[in-house]
Amino acid sequence: MSISLEEAEKMSHAAKTKAKEIGVAMNIAIVDEGANLKAFHRMDNAWLGSVDISIKKAKTARYFDMNSGEIGKLSQPGQPLYNIEHSNGGLITFPGGVVLKNSDGHIVGAIGVSGGSVEQDHEVASAGAAAL
Amino acid sequence: MSISLEEAEKMSHAAKTKAKEIGVAMNIAIVDEGANLKAFHRMDNAWLGSVDISIKKAKTARYFDMNSGEIGKLSQPGQPLYNIEHSNGGLITFPGGVVLKNSDGHIVGAIGVSGGSVEQDHEVASAGAAAL
Amino acid sequence: MSISLEEAEKMSHAAKTKAKEIGVAMNIAIVDEGANLKAFHRMDNAWLGSVDISIKKAKTARYFDMNSGEIGKLSQPGQPLYNIEHSNGGLITFPGGVVLKNSDGHIVGAIGVSGGSVEQDHEVASAGAAAL
Amino acid sequence: MSISLEEAEKMSHAAKTKAKEIGVAMNIAIVDEGANLKAFHRMDNAWLGSVDISIKKAKTARYFDMNSGEIGKLSQPGQPLYNIEHSNGGLITFPGGVVLKNSDGHIVGAIGVSGGSVEQDHEVASAGAAAL
Repeated sequence: MSISLEEAEKMSHAAKTKAKEIGVAMNIAIVDEGANLKAFHRMDNAWLGSVDISIKKAKTARYFDMNSGEIGKLSQPGQPLYNIEHSNGGLITFPGGVVLKNSDGHIVGAIGVSGGSVEQDHEVASAGAAAL
Repeated sequence: MSISLEEAEKMSHAAKTKAKEIGVAMNIAIVDEGANLKAFHRMDNAWLGSVDISIKKAKTARYFDMNSGEIGKLSQPGQPLYNIEHSNGGLITFPGGVVLKNSDGHIVGAIGVSGGSVEQDHEVASAGAAAL
Repeated sequence: MSISLEEAEKMSHAAKTKAKEIGVAMNIAIVDEGANLKAFHRMDNAWLGSVDISIKKAKTARYFDMNSGEIGKLSQPGQPLYNIEHSNGGLITFPGGVVLKNSDGHIVGAIGVSGGSVEQDHEVASAGAAAL
Repeated sequence: MSISLEEAEKMSHAAKTKAKEIGVAMNIAIVDEGANLKAFHRMDNAWLGSVDISIKKAKTARYFDMNSGEIGKLSQPGQPLYNIEHSNGGLITFPGGVVLKNSDGHIVGAIGVSGGSVEQDHEVASAGAAAL
């Protein structure tokens, strides 16, 4: 079972609420089990370049079933996955992509957030994921 | 002035309501004045291939400030804009992309819908645009 | 539930058997519910250009939940979906892509075949799909 | 002489057997002498992002007639082939791509594996290559 649009909107709403709370305008993307885009929202005045980054963060997390920042640790120069970003039409491997798990612990998609510092992006994505 | 996320969500909601009314699952994309994605929603069971098509319809409409189907009339074999679809990373020139005008008649973005027949797509996009 | 690799291999085998029966070397691709590649086989001496075509046919069928040739009827000059092939990184809209349905009639993926005439491609893809 | 589909399937089977033995779900791709895809299998629950990576590893190995990890040593910052990954539509230069040699020691293709740690990927690819 993949996520429904209703669930995606609930998560987007929770992410937006957190973004407003910390005072940063964010781009928020959600992909389903097949890594296909389900919902996207760009908050007013959020970075234009983060449209693509938020979508790529969500896809990256679902592609490898781990948060995007975990992959980034492994893709540094000298690390095992150096330059993995060249695959799949472009990955984003810094924090802000978080896997979505249903109540059974099964991964059903991912959320990607971009617009602030990577710590803020991760915090907002996590708030969205927690609403599932 | 470009559209706000609140306005985009209001239009998406109106489009979804129309889509449910006619019984077709749709992909709904909204771009702003700069032709950059503002909001996207894929209704449950809507075609996966229409994610990209709905976004391209919205961009196509804003790129040329006319509904996507108008461009399609001009891009047929022998017509003035034959194969314009090769530009801009791919255009979609059949109906379903509708320009968004504010109360002054100024174009502030576009909405693209894909998931049904082109007549249904245009009807749902128009319902969304009318909510601005 | 998406298709398993075991099911994909059973379908590929059925397609290959049919291809040998009609004496044409084929490329055979299978995608799952999320339109992601599950299995691919290129028979000896099959066209190199058909690697990409068979994969695109399978994706096209799953993207729109209809056999690829049905879309091709609608994408001709003057028809409603003219030049839809410019979306999704490239579609192939002539016959040879066939949707895969499970015993409940639910679409769980698609098979794409390329290497012969479009009639032969469709015949081989259908033989593969029938083995699910 | 390039590899036959029968040989490719034999190697895929050997790779899958090794993958099951070590308990990791893998994507397995095989390219022929011309670096064109010959066979691909995604094991159930294997990473979606590894479809592209396994294919790119196989192509990378055959493009330069050396295992993918060897190129990765040379593509680090300050090394002779820094950022070679930008060529050929994207390379993957960490371990998991292994050249295929026939009984005469002639390179006839490559196998690429992705889904676990790079050590596991290389181990599974090597098991596949050994079956030729």
